Amino acid sequence: MTSTPIADLWTTLPGGAGSRPEAAYRLLEAAVEAFAERGYHATTTRDIATAAGMSPAALYIHYPSKAALLAEISRGGHAATLALVREAAGSGPDPVARMRRLVEDFTRWHARGSTVGRVVNYELHALPPEDYAVVAGLRLDIERVVSEIITDGLAAGVFEVAEVRTAARAVTSLGIDVSRWYTDRSSETPEELGRRYGELVLRMLGARI
Amino acid sequence: MTSTPIADLWTTLPGGAGSRPEAAYRLLEAAVEAFAERGYHATTTRDIATAAGMSPAALYIHYPSKAALLAEISRGGHAATLALVREAAGSGPDPVARMRRLVEDFTRWHARGSTVGRVVNYELHALPPEDYAVVAGLRLDIERVVSEIITDGLAAGVFEVAEVRTAARAVTSLGIDVSRWYTDRSSETPEELGRRYGELVLRMLGARI
Repeated sequence: MTSTPIADLWTTLPGGAGSRPEAAYRLLEAAVEAFAERGYHATTTRDIATAAGMSPAALYIHYPSKAALLAEISRGGHAATLALVREAAGSGPDPVARMRRLVEDFTRWHARGSTVGRVVNYELHALPPEDYAVVAGLRLDIERVVSEIITDGLAAGVFEVAEVRTAARAVTSLGIDVSRWYTDRSSETPEELGRRYGELVLRMLGARI
Repeated sequence: MTSTPIADLWTTLPGGAGSRPEAAYRLLEAAVEAFAERGYHATTTRDIATAAGMSPAALYIHYPSKAALLAEISRGGHAATLALVREAAGSGPDPVARMRRLVEDFTRWHARGSTVGRVVNYELHALPPEDYAVVAGLRLDIERVVSEIITDGLAAGVFEVAEVRTAARAVTSLGIDVSRWYTDRSSETPEELGRRYGELVLRMLGARI
């Protein structure tokens, strides 16, 4: 588990970290810890309120339900990673440099925010249908950005892959799985891991680096 | 979710599928479905017994507790994948061919058994300490087998990677994460995905294929 505050992980969101009251962040942090520790279904709103030092009534001022907390965590996490991959994708003309930055940033995010990342990626089945649809759309957008860089690299003759979609899936998959295994006790810093994964992914895509 | 029977996923175990009574397999299947659907902590032994068409008393004949079921699922899944990577590692002298087979088999297993794979890989924190230690040992063994093939490939001059451990982690990570996203509705069969991942991993390791 890593302890990067959720507000720091979400500074890439439009509006930045300042857009929610401090109490809402405390509730989100408490919900992330509880969902990651015991799972969504075994957690009650009372558990979350207590961990955040509030009454259940105070929780409901900010979130109408446990599902609303999960939806905010999942939407926020996906929106933040989409913003991050879009920034990498727009950072210059060279597909190799864009992909390297994308993998470095995406990997670092999932290492720094491994606890959040687990809730964001492994509790999707518990989302209400309308929130699931939003998150599924954000996931497709992330894969589309990755696919576009690969396609650009193929056109420029700097990448060589058989199936763009499978390759794009592998790129995002490597980054997402970091949230499963990374802990504060891991031997690599999030930055080191990002750089190494950047190298590995570029090779996987056939870049001659 | 995929519906490959757990007994088929475990035929690589010493003793094969015939080593447990049919009722034990029914309980394991029911436990896997319940843990994957609602999480370990929100599932009761009564839920599992009912889903398996048994009374709670009949469950206790086979497993003393919910934790014992989780431990069997986690140990069994890890032992099966360790057996599979060991078989690939011992299949011949060529590191490229051994790694290709390892990734194909490991990927296919996690696609066919994606529901089991999720419980095996994402509920480790709920294991009793002594079972966790066993499973952690099996995980280290799996990574060691992968690292050895990479080291052999470096010595033979057919692979080129900067850090063996990071590369080995990436290889297993790609395969494990398949259990998160793969479903019966995925566009690739487990076999196709295995072949494509085999190619991607060999490139990642610097093999000239």
